[in-house]
Amino acid sequence: MADKFSVTPYDVTGSVDYNRLVEKFGITPIDEALEKRIKKIAGEVHFLIRRKIFFAHRDMNWLLDQYEKGNKFYIYTGIAPSGGMTIGHLVPFLMTQWLQEKFGAEVYIQIPDEEKFLTKKDPKLTLEKIHELAYADALNIMALGFDPKKTKIFFNTEYSGKLYKQAVRVSKHITFSIVKDAFGFTPETNVGALFYTSMQAVPAFMRSVDLGKNVPCLIPLAVDQDVHFRVARNAIEKLGYYKPAIMHAKFLPGLKGGPKMSASDPDNTVYLDDSPEIIKKKINKAITGQQPTAELQKELGGNPEKCSVCMYYKYLFEPDDKKLAKIFDAERDGTMLAGEHKAALTETINSFLESHRKAKEKIRPHLEDYMLRD
Amino acid sequence: MADKFSVTPYDVTGSVDYNRLVEKFGITPIDEALEKRIKKIAGEVHFLIRRKIFFAHRDMNWLLDQYEKGNKFYIYTGIAPSGGMTIGHLVPFLMTQWLQEKFGAEVYIQIPDEEKFLTKKDPKLTLEKIHELAYADALNIMALGFDPKKTKIFFNTEYSGKLYKQAVRVSKHITFSIVKDAFGFTPETNVGALFYTSMQAVPAFMRSVDLGKNVPCLIPLAVDQDVHFRVARNAIEKLGYYKPAIMHAKFLPGLKGGPKMSASDPDNTVYLDDSPEIIKKKINKAITGQQPTAELQKELGGNPEKCSVCMYYKYLFEPDDKKLAKIFDAERDGTMLAGEHKAALTETINSFLESHRKAKEKIRPHLEDYMLRD
Repeated sequence: MADKFSVTPYDVTGSVDYNRLVEKFGITPIDEALEKRIKKIAGEVHFLIRRKIFFAHRDMNWLLDQYEKGNKFYIYTGIAPSGGMTIGHLVPFLMTQWLQEKFGAEVYIQIPDEEKFLTKKDPKLTLEKIHELAYADALNIMALGFDPKKTKIFFNTEYSGKLYKQAVRVSKHITFSIVKDAFGFTPETNVGALFYTSMQAVPAFMRSVDLGKNVPCLIPLAVDQDVHFRVARNAIEKLGYYKPAIMHAKFLPGLKGGPKMSASDPDNTVYLDDSPEIIKKKINKAITGQQPTAELQKELGGNPEKCSVCMYYKYLFEPDDKKLAKIFDAERDGTMLAGEHKAALTETINSFLESHRKAKEKIRPHLEDYMLRD
Repeated sequence: MADKFSVTPYDVTGSVDYNRLVEKFGITPIDEALEKRIKKIAGEVHFLIRRKIFFAHRDMNWLLDQYEKGNKFYIYTGIAPSGGMTIGHLVPFLMTQWLQEKFGAEVYIQIPDEEKFLTKKDPKLTLEKIHELAYADALNIMALGFDPKKTKIFFNTEYSGKLYKQAVRVSKHITFSIVKDAFGFTPETNVGALFYTSMQAVPAFMRSVDLGKNVPCLIPLAVDQDVHFRVARNAIEKLGYYKPAIMHAKFLPGLKGGPKMSASDPDNTVYLDDSPEIIKKKINKAITGQQPTAELQKELGGNPEKCSVCMYYKYLFEPDDKKLAKIFDAERDGTMLAGEHKAALTETINSFLESHRKAKEKIRPHLEDYMLRD
């Protein structure tokens, strides 16, 4: 039977079945043993792992073997600008930041400011417009508090002097047939989009090129990006480098309950630069798992798993498992009504965004220090 | 009826019918009127044009209209390293040099040191090996005597910081279907090769990008390269730049009489770094249009059009039309025998190569001054 959902870097539709995705993509669930192993080394385990938001991986045990042998890994992640950065985008970056702290890892952040230009038809998405968005994304990311000495960030069009030559080496091992099958491309797809995955592959072995020796790499990403590395891992291995390890995150649900909070769907999305008033309006309209009336909710209770408010606490805003359980319980047993629930989340998000804005202003004069350019 | 020859940038086979190529490629023969027009402006006309070695063009009359209005053109040409540079490669560069002198044109020379890596299967052609060849090519080209103030040369892998972003813009207008039809690519072609033509397109409008205004561009090339610009001219126009004008050269025949002196077929080829002894051996074995014996040659005469020795004089080594006619006559009427004919050419080539070697040593310490890098 055909799946009723689809997950590619260029489209996520339907109700995503993550168990099915594990099979389809050939990835491995993050099980209790791996969680324990991470905890043993790191001293604790991040709630994004405990809560199975990072739910799957490739080669994590190999990566930790290397780490325990003294062969430290670096981390590579990124974001392709197409609209403002959303709270959904924070998930891989928060994981990256925690991993950097616990494992002392160098971090490379790629902002491919050509990808959406090549893959979207929107005529407003010019390279110039995307470059503006890329700069705003860089600021949002660095405001999260990465180690300034161990973090580098770059835009593809400004770092292609470094990237292109290595992308050429990757691209020799990737055919049209491969990208057609992997990404759903057609003969009418432009050749820039066909080539692009080679550019996304480069940072996964770039540190090995720079240091002249093989360095393990870990890529925390949203699971739709896995396909790039399914393709690239084979090519990277053929070039003689370690295949990168990967950790896969689920998508933060949209305000209206869609499978993914997407930067290109404003009504479904909380942007990092939404004003307090906009946040209030958006959260008020968000779907919850509650009953249609206060009376019914008190009587029958609600379903936190279908409640976007509960999900935002789970994914981002309530790191404490006990407190999260209380929020879920209150939704489930009907003691918390939608209005109260939403007001609390609105306050939480606005408080987070207020701190975030301040952090951005603090980092702004220093952003250039993190940038790699040709 | 199918043609008995094929001309693509990646393969030239059969006996090339240049009249048929004019039809197939949709290019325009360089006629007497255009030759006169060039002569009127330049004061003279180069023997490569007089002899129809540059035999066709695109938009040359438009280019000269612009020139006469005071809108000067720049020249873009290049060479993709895959082996040593041959005397056949000199043809477009000699034309470029003459055009630079007569029209005061800026010259950009692209050395795409990724192209043959992506399109050839030879495992010895690593990026490192090609980079060596690229450096040798750059030296050979600059030794021909371009205006140092008006000439820039670059390797793609060292100038991709500039080229990639513009290539991305081009590539958005070029689909797999287009490059499949144009270059004979298949679904098993690698995505680097599919993208590559976008990189070759960039220097044809790069000066317009740099100066922030539309500047006409002229590309002298061997006719097999026309397909890149058949594809790119449409894309460049969509980006709002002038389509480049083009002048098309025939191929210098091989020593054994093949359609093209190719860098990857040593026995058929005269390299710029062949020693005097090698030149002597190669020319001695070259095919001529002469009869099998001296007696028959004296009696029946030969055919200069089928004689590689005569062709090398025509394409490169005898600029004087009257002297060339004497050489052809002597071959035709049987008064010049193969041995004598070959000894004279051997001396001419070796004398040229000796001067060329000296010019290379003179330019070597200054080569860096001509190079564009990120």
